[in-house]
Amino acid sequence: MSEDMLLDVVNGVATLTLNRPARLNALTPAMIEAIEQALRRCEADPAVAAIIVTGAGRGFCSGLDLAALADTIGKPLPPPPTHRRPGLFTWLPDISKPIIAAVNGAAVGGGFILAMMADLRFASTTATFNTMFARRGLVAEHGISHILPRQIGLSRALDLILSARTIDAEEAQRIGFVDRLCAPDALLDEARAYAALLATGVSPLSMAAIKMQVYADLNQDLDAACRAADRLVRATLGHADQHESLIAGREKRPPRFRPWQGRGFEGQGEVPE
Amino acid sequence: MSEDMLLDVVNGVATLTLNRPARLNALTPAMIEAIEQALRRCEADPAVAAIIVTGAGRGFCSGLDLAALADTIGKPLPPPPTHRRPGLFTWLPDISKPIIAAVNGAAVGGGFILAMMADLRFASTTATFNTMFARRGLVAEHGISHILPRQIGLSRALDLILSARTIDAEEAQRIGFVDRLCAPDALLDEARAYAALLATGVSPLSMAAIKMQVYADLNQDLDAACRAADRLVRATLGHADQHESLIAGREKRPPRFRPWQGRGFEGQGEVPE
Amino acid sequence: MSEDMLLDVVNGVATLTLNRPARLNALTPAMIEAIEQALRRCEADPAVAAIIVTGAGRGFCSGLDLAALADTIGKPLPPPPTHRRPGLFTWLPDISKPIIAAVNGAAVGGGFILAMMADLRFASTTATFNTMFARRGLVAEHGISHILPRQIGLSRALDLILSARTIDAEEAQRIGFVDRLCAPDALLDEARAYAALLATGVSPLSMAAIKMQVYADLNQDLDAACRAADRLVRATLGHADQHESLIAGREKRPPRFRPWQGRGFEGQGEVPE
Repeated sequence: MSEDMLLDVVNGVATLTLNRPARLNALTPAMIEAIEQALRRCEADPAVAAIIVTGAGRGFCSGLDLAALADTIGKPLPPPPTHRRPGLFTWLPDISKPIIAAVNGAAVGGGFILAMMADLRFASTTATFNTMFARRGLVAEHGISHILPRQIGLSRALDLILSARTIDAEEAQRIGFVDRLCAPDALLDEARAYAALLATGVSPLSMAAIKMQVYADLNQDLDAACRAADRLVRATLGHADQHESLIAGREKRPPRFRPWQGRGFEGQGEVPE
Repeated sequence: MSEDMLLDVVNGVATLTLNRPARLNALTPAMIEAIEQALRRCEADPAVAAIIVTGAGRGFCSGLDLAALADTIGKPLPPPPTHRRPGLFTWLPDISKPIIAAVNGAAVGGGFILAMMADLRFASTTATFNTMFARRGLVAEHGISHILPRQIGLSRALDLILSARTIDAEEAQRIGFVDRLCAPDALLDEARAYAALLATGVSPLSMAAIKMQVYADLNQDLDAACRAADRLVRATLGHADQHESLIAGREKRPPRFRPWQGRGFEGQGEVPE
Repeated sequence: MSEDMLLDVVNGVATLTLNRPARLNALTPAMIEAIEQALRRCEADPAVAAIIVTGAGRGFCSGLDLAALADTIGKPLPPPPTHRRPGLFTWLPDISKPIIAAVNGAAVGGGFILAMMADLRFASTTATFNTMFARRGLVAEHGISHILPRQIGLSRALDLILSARTIDAEEAQRIGFVDRLCAPDALLDEARAYAALLATGVSPLSMAAIKMQVYADLNQDLDAACRAADRLVRATLGHADQHESLIAGREKRPPRFRPWQGRGFEGQGEVPE
């Protein structure tokens, strides 16, 4: 793993730390690659149930490193990426484990996108947010025009993307972009406590299905959503976690759910013949 | 009607009360059937303009009765229901009269779904909410992955479904899941006052059209939404309620709108030849 | 321009003022036509970067003039409009410059629609809002059933459209319909200050792209949204505003962005051979 990216795993919770504090964790191509490798490793690792992304030092992520940005201006773009979707971090919703951004400072441009593409956002009271694209003569990149209105509503999203104004963590919470506002010293502890609740209290199979369903249903009607849910119910019927939940409840002990390694839902159930 | 389900109709407002207080109104197959019969009867009844669903005792609805749940674990599922959509209460949006959940206590699992599938939610300060699925090794069932993000936004919905944590009524209101927070003693009165406003102040034809349009447009683009509205405008042009509204206004008296019996919009207008 | 509609342009900010204060700015066919002409002129005018719509006197817009409304009751409708979409003000999202409603008083029926179809809403504490359709025996007209749930969520939209109750500016802000609540005397100044920020701080090309993208993505999945963004990135790569942003930043001066005249995105870039 790159020096600019730290990864540790404790009690089912992985913490990725962007580690270029002197540059407010501005993204280099190597870091972007390292973030992807780390998240895909976390997805496949049975020891990881939930993932936190945070920044070292006083910034969360100031976006693409300005030097790298200057290099690309006026040059032909590289061919479209081989990802399912073009854009930075647009594949985060496909990681079948929950990702929590612990936003410790400024989240700007690509850093805003990283926070936005996480499933939840915890923020320090010192965090700030700026979409930045419109100030740079850029368009609504990286899926922000799709995801942000679904997080905070149409007009608040237009406000933040059109104006590229900086908002503080309190406003970000008020408009629904930040899920929890934390004292700076408590941010990582609170994010880890929530992640621990996911890692110990709920089924990893359930989380994988739910994350997939919620993002898929953003553009699927209620009929299709219910039919897809029904298929998943059948594919997972009798999964060990369903039994374990009942037994743990009866025995008044914490459940011991099966780890998840990102391998799909078919045949997860154990329906007796 | 089942003993476990009460229905009364007063001044255009129907109140359905789940009535197994000793079991926190946990759902039995007979109750689920009784709820459907009652709501379909209310839809067809010209004396009903708006519907309230509440629970007897200290709970709203604790979900499927655990005994019933235990019976289904590990057994093959019944064939898909004959409803338009699989899942519990997924047909509530098709009832062409407004449904208000008056949530008096815990709404858990299937009880959360019942509250969610209502059009509005009034809640006592003693109400609590828990999606529960992920704790039981289940997926996002019954359309929750479609409807909840459209009520409270993407990340708040992920939070509630992934974590299966219990939230109180105050948080539920803050995030937009609960529309009105009421003192426990005032809950039913406030829900009935709102329902009475619907029953006396607005057109039942309008409410039927609006409810259908809003749910249909959740997955329809603006062009199609405007064309569908235009067709409805034409089908209902000259409806008696339109005249009545103007005349009542002129005569400074409450309007007397026509009852609605759930029979479709074509030919509702009375355009002179 | 009609006497009932004023238009002035100062420092890149156009202000349209509905000017029938004695009738609370009720809309006549001539005013509706004048609003459209004014907005289309603003779109084509390189001197305009952002647009404010407000009302003269104590009302914002009380909807269609009641006399005009009475005339249409019971008469065959005119043939569908030649606009892309039927309905009043449903074309506002297609104007490629940001539109801010400065709601100074009552916004009712068609006046509610005018405020809603703007991109943002600033409101005086004296503003009030009422959808009105259901009280008149009408359906959810003019795209309200599509746009409103995407601004304030499904159940709040149902509440406002079904009940046709009047809400004050404070409630409108709380539920996310109003973006900024202002003292009555400060409303126009605050709306103009925000519009000036758009007119001087961000790229008009960016704003045009962003507005188009956000509305288009309301009914497009994340894959399609990211592909569309990628195409726009390529079409605008090397646009002068991108260079100007970097140079202005280096020289620590405000950027001088190119005006926008609503002519499409293809070939906006200046990629060197």
